[in-house]
Amino acid sequence: MDRPVIGILSDFGDEDFFVASLKGVIAQINPEARIIDLTHRVPSFNVLSGSFILYAAYRYFPQKTIFLAVVDPGVGSSRKILCVETERYFFIGPDNGVLSMALEEETIIQIREVSESEFFLPYPTRTFEARDKMAPAAAWLSKGTPCEKFGPKIVSYNKLDVRSPKGEGDNLVGTILHIDKFGNLITNIPVEMLTQKREGSDGRLLRLRLVRGSKDESPELRGLDIVFHKNYGEAEKGEALCLTGSLGLLEIAIREGSASAWLKANVGDGIILTVICET
Amino acid sequence: MDRPVIGILSDFGDEDFFVASLKGVIAQINPEARIIDLTHRVPSFNVLSGSFILYAAYRYFPQKTIFLAVVDPGVGSSRKILCVETERYFFIGPDNGVLSMALEEETIIQIREVSESEFFLPYPTRTFEARDKMAPAAAWLSKGTPCEKFGPKIVSYNKLDVRSPKGEGDNLVGTILHIDKFGNLITNIPVEMLTQKREGSDGRLLRLRLVRGSKDESPELRGLDIVFHKNYGEAEKGEALCLTGSLGLLEIAIREGSASAWLKANVGDGIILTVICET
Amino acid sequence: MDRPVIGILSDFGDEDFFVASLKGVIAQINPEARIIDLTHRVPSFNVLSGSFILYAAYRYFPQKTIFLAVVDPGVGSSRKILCVETERYFFIGPDNGVLSMALEEETIIQIREVSESEFFLPYPTRTFEARDKMAPAAAWLSKGTPCEKFGPKIVSYNKLDVRSPKGEGDNLVGTILHIDKFGNLITNIPVEMLTQKREGSDGRLLRLRLVRGSKDESPELRGLDIVFHKNYGEAEKGEALCLTGSLGLLEIAIREGSASAWLKANVGDGIILTVICET
Repeated sequence: MDRPVIGILSDFGDEDFFVASLKGVIAQINPEARIIDLTHRVPSFNVLSGSFILYAAYRYFPQKTIFLAVVDPGVGSSRKILCVETERYFFIGPDNGVLSMALEEETIIQIREVSESEFFLPYPTRTFEARDKMAPAAAWLSKGTPCEKFGPKIVSYNKLDVRSPKGEGDNLVGTILHIDKFGNLITNIPVEMLTQKREGSDGRLLRLRLVRGSKDESPELRGLDIVFHKNYGEAEKGEALCLTGSLGLLEIAIREGSASAWLKANVGDGIILTVICET
Repeated sequence: MDRPVIGILSDFGDEDFFVASLKGVIAQINPEARIIDLTHRVPSFNVLSGSFILYAAYRYFPQKTIFLAVVDPGVGSSRKILCVETERYFFIGPDNGVLSMALEEETIIQIREVSESEFFLPYPTRTFEARDKMAPAAAWLSKGTPCEKFGPKIVSYNKLDVRSPKGEGDNLVGTILHIDKFGNLITNIPVEMLTQKREGSDGRLLRLRLVRGSKDESPELRGLDIVFHKNYGEAEKGEALCLTGSLGLLEIAIREGSASAWLKANVGDGIILTVICET
Repeated sequence: MDRPVIGILSDFGDEDFFVASLKGVIAQINPEARIIDLTHRVPSFNVLSGSFILYAAYRYFPQKTIFLAVVDPGVGSSRKILCVETERYFFIGPDNGVLSMALEEETIIQIREVSESEFFLPYPTRTFEARDKMAPAAAWLSKGTPCEKFGPKIVSYNKLDVRSPKGEGDNLVGTILHIDKFGNLITNIPVEMLTQKREGSDGRLLRLRLVRGSKDESPELRGLDIVFHKNYGEAEKGEALCLTGSLGLLEIAIREGSASAWLKANVGDGIILTVICET
């Protein structure tokens, strides 16, 4: 590979020695590898958040990019380290779901356990396998070592339990997958579920409800009528709106404000959107 | 261009999928481009802050660097995307002033609107034009596509409304342009305005006043006598001082402390410095 | 050198123009240099923290890497700027101890003061010597300029005052060197000091005490019995444990929680571990 790209995502933060160590290891094994940070500020131990960010960004990278994704509360335990080859990319990370949202979009060629110690740093620790096992594997992969060398074939991998969105009458029922840096709420409801109901969607009034916690709790925490807009700029400053986000998913936003702070919404909260009228 | 540099500045934060998406897009279009982050932690929607950081850093970059600067509350609206060629650099960003402080230092060769969809990602969204339009344009520019291809010529661009500093008797009147990471207050008053008044400035006593909010408010919020020093180290720990900052502008600091926290100062506050005596 | 690596560490933060300026300067002087960020989020002016992070990460980098480490409260004063050549690496930074923990691991070939202005930017400021003096020196070094050119030879450098760990009967007495991003407390006690006492250490019960502030204060702030584990995963969620950290030093952690928040521990606090029984 000519100037192979290794994209790294983690919950290691930007303020510590963790990420630097990974990059040093990679640069030492393969000076030609080009490292691109996805982010290292996934909330600590939050596998869902890491999985979402990888899912949102990976598809824009060059083919053959190697993604190293480490959100790994079970480091040092018996959980496996995976190396997954798909038709377009490679993925290395713990088998805890952090790779799963991206993998569900991909055609998988093979899954291997990363267990062959010849590709590890000498004397790998039990507390920093990203540095001692995963970064070296990513670097060797970028130098052309085939996946097959890293360890035995695996037939399945752990997936995250994210409920599928569904339409129920005039309701669209989904989940908040991600709260972005601006406080926008990104749901798992594809915009097509709204536009299929009736042609066009601009200017429609929607009622928004949040469903917090387990399914058994009182479902309606807040009912709020908001307008569907094409972009943030069509709303007034401070106005709440619904729009098609950059991933094709419905998004709840406040223009130049934070929808998450205002609705006290969390990742994982349920969301119900009801079409209440057309303008 | 051989290993062209693309410098990116944004308010996208380091914790999300936004920056990773831009970098993926650029690496996919031009694997030879070298990406250098200016910062992605401009306060959300703060065009002045973004413009200042670009202004403070861009001149240290190699000639022909392409700067992609995205602080863009009007994304998806009718605001234009600009590509500006100057004698030394290229700049791409929304036409909302974020480029203006740097451009005022440069000799402009041409300004183009970035509107030709052949240089965009397919199906660009209305909410993430940095990924879908601006990053691709920067990448194509780095591959040698001339500015002229991106869209029609534009004759002017939007500038930020920053009042010029002025001398009034023994007073120097200016504005806080930036509060840096250490809490130092960077004004728009060039040190020459002080040293021209009388020869030499070290050790002089200055009276500092802050003017908050609109011009009609009570002007004097705090009068404080501080000493002009050559560097932070000449002051005692915890002592306030005035000095020539790294951009040649007067700066208010507290040694190993935060002037902004202590004065409750904000970007945009007026500042009046009065020479009250010489030591 | 072919694609030389310059690793940068600082307390400049990610949110400002400082780091961008350094990178611009380096890219302008040596376009071939490859810049890798260690971190820029060392707490402001915290020389010990910067020294530790450099120490923890540098050894994983390729040989001949040039480390530029800037935590520099005395910028512009008479403190010297050092360029240190060791058998494996180069180090540039202020002579205030920020380099010392790494240098103590290295075999030093020579120490030079960086004082020759021909390698500086024209008109260097007194407030940003990292941009005006240190980054240029690192870039010239990466282009092959020998250390000898930068200035006169120096025979010694300033070291940080970190007490050595020691064993006293059944007690291991050390210091908290670092609190990592997850809130884990990294001590300066090598795991060998524990395992040498008796063979094997897994499952042992230890009593943990913190000693805060000066030696004259009341020594025992908290006595807590914790188990020594192989990895975080062997403890229950929320359980405190002691383990061998990724640098071979004893570490106090809470599984998927923050030991530092819970113990209100600070860098520099003393730590006493007593072996109280074996399980």
